[in-house]
Amino acid sequence: MSNEKPGNSNIVWHNATVTRSRREQQNGHKSVILWFTGLSGAGKSSLAHAVEEQLHQLGSRTCVLDGDNVRHGLSGDLGFSDNDRKENIRRIGEVAKLFLEAGVIALTAFISPFRTERAMVRKLVPHGEFIEIYCCADIAICEQRDVKGLYRRARAGEIKNFTGISSPYEEPVNPEINVDTGTQSIEECVDEVISLLHARGILVRA
Amino acid sequence: MSNEKPGNSNIVWHNATVTRSRREQQNGHKSVILWFTGLSGAGKSSLAHAVEEQLHQLGSRTCVLDGDNVRHGLSGDLGFSDNDRKENIRRIGEVAKLFLEAGVIALTAFISPFRTERAMVRKLVPHGEFIEIYCCADIAICEQRDVKGLYRRARAGEIKNFTGISSPYEEPVNPEINVDTGTQSIEECVDEVISLLHARGILVRA
Repeated sequence: MSNEKPGNSNIVWHNATVTRSRREQQNGHKSVILWFTGLSGAGKSSLAHAVEEQLHQLGSRTCVLDGDNVRHGLSGDLGFSDNDRKENIRRIGEVAKLFLEAGVIALTAFISPFRTERAMVRKLVPHGEFIEIYCCADIAICEQRDVKGLYRRARAGEIKNFTGISSPYEEPVNPEINVDTGTQSIEECVDEVISLLHARGILVRA
Repeated sequence: MSNEKPGNSNIVWHNATVTRSRREQQNGHKSVILWFTGLSGAGKSSLAHAVEEQLHQLGSRTCVLDGDNVRHGLSGDLGFSDNDRKENIRRIGEVAKLFLEAGVIALTAFISPFRTERAMVRKLVPHGEFIEIYCCADIAICEQRDVKGLYRRARAGEIKNFTGISSPYEEPVNPEINVDTGTQSIEECVDEVISLLHARGILVRA
């Protein structure tokens, strides 16, 4: 913390002294981005929230970004054209990066169907700090669940560019984690994520 | 945390169980937005970082949003037209709200010269959770400092719509905190902010 008075124009005194490293030390764990990707209905948001619950119980600082708190807020001005979807992912990546710098484990749950967009976010942060988690439920199971009724509407032609129906989902080539959220239990999936965080030294105290 | 298996389509199992309240309890303090506003060179970013340092030493979770980490990232696609400046402030408000929900004290340091835009952000969050801090340094002092050389360039006509020179700064009518960052020491200004946070019960443990 600078002790210079603002009247002294010879110094630049707005240095950020609370570094990410100090935050991580305070928190007792490192920060990272957990990027859940997969079809609508695959269980991305559910798994993200279940992982968050586990992390919270382990004493970690977390946040979940998903459609509920991003599409109505930060990306409220965007639609679902290719450009708007890309801009949506770009903004989410930038916000996740801000949480990363704040020492928080950022969990994001968006279909994010395109490899180039996921690669764009991966490149925003240092190597190893973007963990891609492919929720690879079979589309038949996703469509059967159809919690939000979106598949029915997409089949009826009421929704255009619907991933898996009328727009492609590009599977991750080499994701850090691959879980079958169509058949595995949520506990199994949570365990896989938490195990990786331990193995990577992100959860250092637990 | 839900114990239901994802294969059970009768339940919606993506509830967020880690609430803001639980985060605040974990952190030992409440979250809030500290919105620093004032002329270029008034010392907003410096004061925000000095307050952050103090808060960190008190064991609080914080983040600072300022031009350095927002204009090159989240708002990297925006310029300085009236519309773009407004969109910039809107996004910052939405991101600050996400940090608020994550239990983090969000400090923002942007000129944010217009009352309507600051009011827009204030309305995003519950009453009392947006604290406006007017850094009211005299423009002569700001221009004398001119740390970034912006006033000189604005006077030379190289920068258009420069707040205080060729674009208005609308003073806050009733800010929660009013500090004269032109004449007060940074310690005095920090104390004023921390005192208010104590008085408001935001720092409950310190």
